[in-house]
Amino acid sequence: MKPSIVWQTDFSLTWGAVNTMRGVVKQVDSELECYDITHEIEQFNILAASRELSFVVPFWPKGTIFVSVVDPGVGTKRKGCVAKLKDGNYVITPDNGSLTHLYYEIGIEEVREIDESVNRYKGTEDVSVFHGRDIFAYTAARLASGIISFEEVGVAYPVSEIIVEDYEYVKAIVTSTEIKGIIISVSDHFGSIVFNILTKDFNKIGYSHGDIVRVKISHNGKVYFEDDVLYEKSFGYVDLNEPVVFNSSSNYISIGLNQNNFRDTYCIKDGKDWIVELSKK
Amino acid sequence: MKPSIVWQTDFSLTWGAVNTMRGVVKQVDSELECYDITHEIEQFNILAASRELSFVVPFWPKGTIFVSVVDPGVGTKRKGCVAKLKDGNYVITPDNGSLTHLYYEIGIEEVREIDESVNRYKGTEDVSVFHGRDIFAYTAARLASGIISFEEVGVAYPVSEIIVEDYEYVKAIVTSTEIKGIIISVSDHFGSIVFNILTKDFNKIGYSHGDIVRVKISHNGKVYFEDDVLYEKSFGYVDLNEPVVFNSSSNYISIGLNQNNFRDTYCIKDGKDWIVELSKK
Amino acid sequence: MKPSIVWQTDFSLTWGAVNTMRGVVKQVDSELECYDITHEIEQFNILAASRELSFVVPFWPKGTIFVSVVDPGVGTKRKGCVAKLKDGNYVITPDNGSLTHLYYEIGIEEVREIDESVNRYKGTEDVSVFHGRDIFAYTAARLASGIISFEEVGVAYPVSEIIVEDYEYVKAIVTSTEIKGIIISVSDHFGSIVFNILTKDFNKIGYSHGDIVRVKISHNGKVYFEDDVLYEKSFGYVDLNEPVVFNSSSNYISIGLNQNNFRDTYCIKDGKDWIVELSKK
Repeated sequence: MKPSIVWQTDFSLTWGAVNTMRGVVKQVDSELECYDITHEIEQFNILAASRELSFVVPFWPKGTIFVSVVDPGVGTKRKGCVAKLKDGNYVITPDNGSLTHLYYEIGIEEVREIDESVNRYKGTEDVSVFHGRDIFAYTAARLASGIISFEEVGVAYPVSEIIVEDYEYVKAIVTSTEIKGIIISVSDHFGSIVFNILTKDFNKIGYSHGDIVRVKISHNGKVYFEDDVLYEKSFGYVDLNEPVVFNSSSNYISIGLNQNNFRDTYCIKDGKDWIVELSKK
Repeated sequence: MKPSIVWQTDFSLTWGAVNTMRGVVKQVDSELECYDITHEIEQFNILAASRELSFVVPFWPKGTIFVSVVDPGVGTKRKGCVAKLKDGNYVITPDNGSLTHLYYEIGIEEVREIDESVNRYKGTEDVSVFHGRDIFAYTAARLASGIISFEEVGVAYPVSEIIVEDYEYVKAIVTSTEIKGIIISVSDHFGSIVFNILTKDFNKIGYSHGDIVRVKISHNGKVYFEDDVLYEKSFGYVDLNEPVVFNSSSNYISIGLNQNNFRDTYCIKDGKDWIVELSKK
Repeated sequence: MKPSIVWQTDFSLTWGAVNTMRGVVKQVDSELECYDITHEIEQFNILAASRELSFVVPFWPKGTIFVSVVDPGVGTKRKGCVAKLKDGNYVITPDNGSLTHLYYEIGIEEVREIDESVNRYKGTEDVSVFHGRDIFAYTAARLASGIISFEEVGVAYPVSEIIVEDYEYVKAIVTSTEIKGIIISVSDHFGSIVFNILTKDFNKIGYSHGDIVRVKISHNGKVYFEDDVLYEKSFGYVDLNEPVVFNSSSNYISIGLNQNNFRDTYCIKDGKDWIVELSKK
């Protein structure tokens, strides 16, 4: 069985762009199977792409080929690469920061720059604005199909040269009862937000379901949310529209409202400047 | 050939949630094929999910496994179940009202509560907010793959205990020339609305194409639309922006505007309080 | 290997309509594979559908069966047809103008009107509003599966009788250094717009990367944009939010902003009345 190709872009599905990438795959090998993470990554938001990849990769069979194209520098000197992760998966992407979270959370075993002279869909040499189709899709299909090996992608370069943004990795600061961290994702469609606080670390300092947690969220000194919130398994343990602290689907501490949207209600965004402080009531 | 798995949620495709469900399926059995109804069910609108299922199920091969996850009570005591329909299809869903329309329109032969101790994706025991991935996707894949039988889903419980909302099933009241019913769906992207009036019942009392129908739509006594409308096969039989009464794609009487949006133009919603009265001109 | 079926509609994926088309395909032959161009064509915009098809078709293997359903005249006398293109692909569509761009750019070898008495999904004879499901999906599946031949679609009719809109094909007027053309597409999610000016024609009169181009865009005499713009390979060669002229992914001259939206910023639409004039600085 050939590996699946799993896609993520900021192209949207409102026009034919994503479809032409699929057509190129089918031209290479009609047996290949493609799946989509999302094509609604916020335009040009490389870190959001990186984070979303890290949420999804663990749920696919090892050997899967991921293609992530959020590529504001398309057609410039930024590298196109294939990264082999330490868990056995592959990621094909512009090397522009999209590998940040996988670099820190899973680790990258080896990375190769795509050699465009070999790994470009024929006839597109004059197009410089759609590497997603002409280089990344074509390379993904040839790799998945076994037409090229990982080595034939192109020349390896040091993993240490991969572009990674490190500011988001401010470690949550844990004391005996308090944790100070940041907001790492606001992509949840239901509006829950995710902190850089692993639930196991949170539990380790003594929190358990049924506890009341003091939650304070601020940005550049301005407080956006501050209240006592129940820590429970899920939304249905609090009244409608009430907040709850819970373990997210990726095992980070999150906060949300029962059948309402926390992010939009409190105008929350993500990034290193969005501070959360959790303390015992 | 293994049965297809056909999905419906209110998760949207703007983030990776749906994709992780697909990854779990592929981990169970890489041969399985997944299809989507929509992931844009209105958030927490269980009855809309139920209605959409009933529109779609008849068009798939018998034996198909449907997964419907609109699940505001995720992680609470509400049951996760697999229902075997009288037509030979299966539906995997929280037992929270999502089976209402199938219960009334197709009938449910047997229902089993998913045994989480067996049918949960390993490693997710501490996550209570994503049964769509951890329980429903995993169970769907194992059932489709033949790894478990329907009996191995878990213990059967009485079909009569399935949660169904019955208020939407106010039967349309038919006299010799008049019909009084309700609006059962406003999900049509083009803005046509659907009444709980079977076209065969409408025709039976003497309406035929070319007739003028008096249509009155009201909600709590307020009239939202009242006019004489042509009953015809399709939109192109009336002028642009004009209303037409027609047989919907699911064989219910509908009203729409030719190349315009009836629902939005007249601010129509669905439910038992949205009354339609049709009479002969 | 059976040919893929590649779909495009204005139905959206917010409800189950597209899914029922897929179900019909699976009922005909569970081995068939379906792919989507987009289901977000602007409602009733036949020319947009025609243009999007022309962008996508060249990237699929020959023999692919495309289904395009933007069909405001559904259920009226307009023909449903299968066109065999000169490049070996097939398009199934209402004959309402959707074939315009393929007619001019690739050419149509033969066209047949779908015989509904044979090629309609059984049990839908009373439904006139959903040929996408009942006739086009059913016919696509039977053709892809080999159950019917192209000849068994129905009776051939003269290619010259196909409905085509020709006004968009005003040829760009090229002098020694100036080109006057129109805007042919604004569907790019990032907001770049496409002119009816082939990049090879543009280069032929002496433009090359690094040149400054005077760009004037007007509609009915009103100027929407006029400035000196760099002609380069891609966006990253100009500052953030600055305009750049480049070769589009379909080899037409385009203009866009670096990480910003040209179309929305300057309120640009497409069509024969949207004039662009390019001249040497």
